[in-house]
Amino acid sequence: MKALVYNGPQTIAFEQRPKPIIQESTDAVVRVLHTSICGTDLHILKGDVPTVAKGRILGHEGVGVIDSLGSAVSGLQKGDKVLISCVSACGVCGPCRKGLCSHCSYGGWILGNTIDGLQAEYARIPHATSSLYGLSDKIDLRTAVVLSDAFPTALECGTLSAHVQPGNTVVIIGAGPVGMAALMTARMYSPSLVVVVDTNDARLEAAKVFGAHETINSARGDPKKALMELVNGQGYDSVIEAVGIPATFELCQEIIAVGGSIANLGVHGRPVELHLEKLWDRNINIRASLVDATTTPMLLRLFDTGQLDGKPLITHVFPFDDVLKAYETCKAAAQEKAMKIVIDIAEN
Amino acid sequence: MKALVYNGPQTIAFEQRPKPIIQESTDAVVRVLHTSICGTDLHILKGDVPTVAKGRILGHEGVGVIDSLGSAVSGLQKGDKVLISCVSACGVCGPCRKGLCSHCSYGGWILGNTIDGLQAEYARIPHATSSLYGLSDKIDLRTAVVLSDAFPTALECGTLSAHVQPGNTVVIIGAGPVGMAALMTARMYSPSLVVVVDTNDARLEAAKVFGAHETINSARGDPKKALMELVNGQGYDSVIEAVGIPATFELCQEIIAVGGSIANLGVHGRPVELHLEKLWDRNINIRASLVDATTTPMLLRLFDTGQLDGKPLITHVFPFDDVLKAYETCKAAAQEKAMKIVIDIAEN
Repeated sequence: MKALVYNGPQTIAFEQRPKPIIQESTDAVVRVLHTSICGTDLHILKGDVPTVAKGRILGHEGVGVIDSLGSAVSGLQKGDKVLISCVSACGVCGPCRKGLCSHCSYGGWILGNTIDGLQAEYARIPHATSSLYGLSDKIDLRTAVVLSDAFPTALECGTLSAHVQPGNTVVIIGAGPVGMAALMTARMYSPSLVVVVDTNDARLEAAKVFGAHETINSARGDPKKALMELVNGQGYDSVIEAVGIPATFELCQEIIAVGGSIANLGVHGRPVELHLEKLWDRNINIRASLVDATTTPMLLRLFDTGQLDGKPLITHVFPFDDVLKAYETCKAAAQEKAMKIVIDIAEN
Repeated sequence: MKALVYNGPQTIAFEQRPKPIIQESTDAVVRVLHTSICGTDLHILKGDVPTVAKGRILGHEGVGVIDSLGSAVSGLQKGDKVLISCVSACGVCGPCRKGLCSHCSYGGWILGNTIDGLQAEYARIPHATSSLYGLSDKIDLRTAVVLSDAFPTALECGTLSAHVQPGNTVVIIGAGPVGMAALMTARMYSPSLVVVVDTNDARLEAAKVFGAHETINSARGDPKKALMELVNGQGYDSVIEAVGIPATFELCQEIIAVGGSIANLGVHGRPVELHLEKLWDRNINIRASLVDATTTPMLLRLFDTGQLDGKPLITHVFPFDDVLKAYETCKAAAQEKAMKIVIDIAEN
């Protein structure tokens, strides 16, 4: 089969690989229909993720059709169209039973990381019972790839970690695909004000379409001043950091309200300064987390009912043969006006 | 009346002052029976708290008898024995209605800070209805001073912020009075293991008496290694920082378990380094807060029933005429084997 393989920093190749087979009774093999590129894949390319060995097939976002099933898999049939979660959850270990599936003792984020991933014609999915979700006919299969990772991450590590509530004031820093999905999920909790901050005007225009009440270009002027003016100097109840650099985490600390919550969903490569000398008495909460994907069923329902629609997030679609071009577009996402980039691997 | 007055960094004096009078209909004037010195008073002496002006009567912990009442005060009578909360809460502003009384728009921590405090024969208490608590005959009046600040701070900003739950593993870093009160309140939630860390052996011995399962002297050996060995390398569910320096906050980050919570109750004078490059995917929570004193009624009940006893925390008692000596003892607390230092101002 064809697969996109990581061969060390800045080196990916489109290669032929053997089709995967069932190794454990809890496995499924899925024929991949659609996959997508995540910001984390770009981190891997930079060499930032040491758990990814050379020769690994990349990808942890995808939708497919069940090709074969191990004997212990329940609730799924060959031929079922399924969403593949970015988190492989055994469902029975200590962390899984606490809902901490991202830290599953036998799984977690392993696809395209410690085992071969979804940017291939077929993929082996461990713990299939708890890691695959049957898709209804109402859901557009290509659109559903945003439910593998982007939407549950945005909801759990952004909106829920920041305690977005009706009437809250919310800031989202970073208008990439996950920041935008955070905006869409935050709006479901009826905040009174959502401001999106980014350095790219096209992304900020898109944020308005996705429901931002206000947008601020942080490359121009003083973003702190502009943000504080919007809330009469009171700060924001919920601050979502969706970039992952020291400067944006600094801004979060400057605009958080007394009693507020900062949710970090950026992937950080360096330490940041935490201003406890200013924040120790502000009754604030900071949460940093990896997605557990425990909200996937809720999000599937919201896509089914049409209350959420991930389709507008998908700006680019490439055939699998153009996967290297898809990666180039993803690397230049802001200039290319790209949000989520999907790769079509096969017809249903 | 006699009062202990702050006259600038490292300068306090025992002075004569006029007895306070009712200024607002919501005030009470209280004859102070017992007061105590808080670590924050020592911060003020160092000049670390710029809101405290020269000439301010210090003190925000105390027990007294109501001397006079403004016309709008309800639920209290002249002659009532009362606990004076360190937080003056109007009870009706936006923050108070959210339980954020520490950030009351018209109060908060103001006693011995922006208005005269409790290290005096009499004190004016604003917002008396929501800031004074009638004391039952079961409670030892001198012991009750630990309910003004130390116990609600330990419970709210330590035990509750760190989400201590039955079966949890807990570390408390810093065995001063508030760390010790955190230990006592944490034990009420039935954790499976509570480890106390300090640099002073006498304080660690005391921690064992107050219920620590294990103690570690961080001045000897590698505290991280010792702590991790106690939990088979898994880290701790609840970590309470009760010191307030970068080194102790660093240790908290090194020993937190996946899914765990760090509660900061140290008063920090400097920024700290937050290792988001290691913690971003650990599903951890950090909370930094000032006491709201919303748990004071619960703590009064626990003292009433004898489920909690603050008396062993009080190691030194001075008459008011020796208040300067009391401060000297407090400054050298670890060497003097002092925990909570009470000053008797008057007989009941």
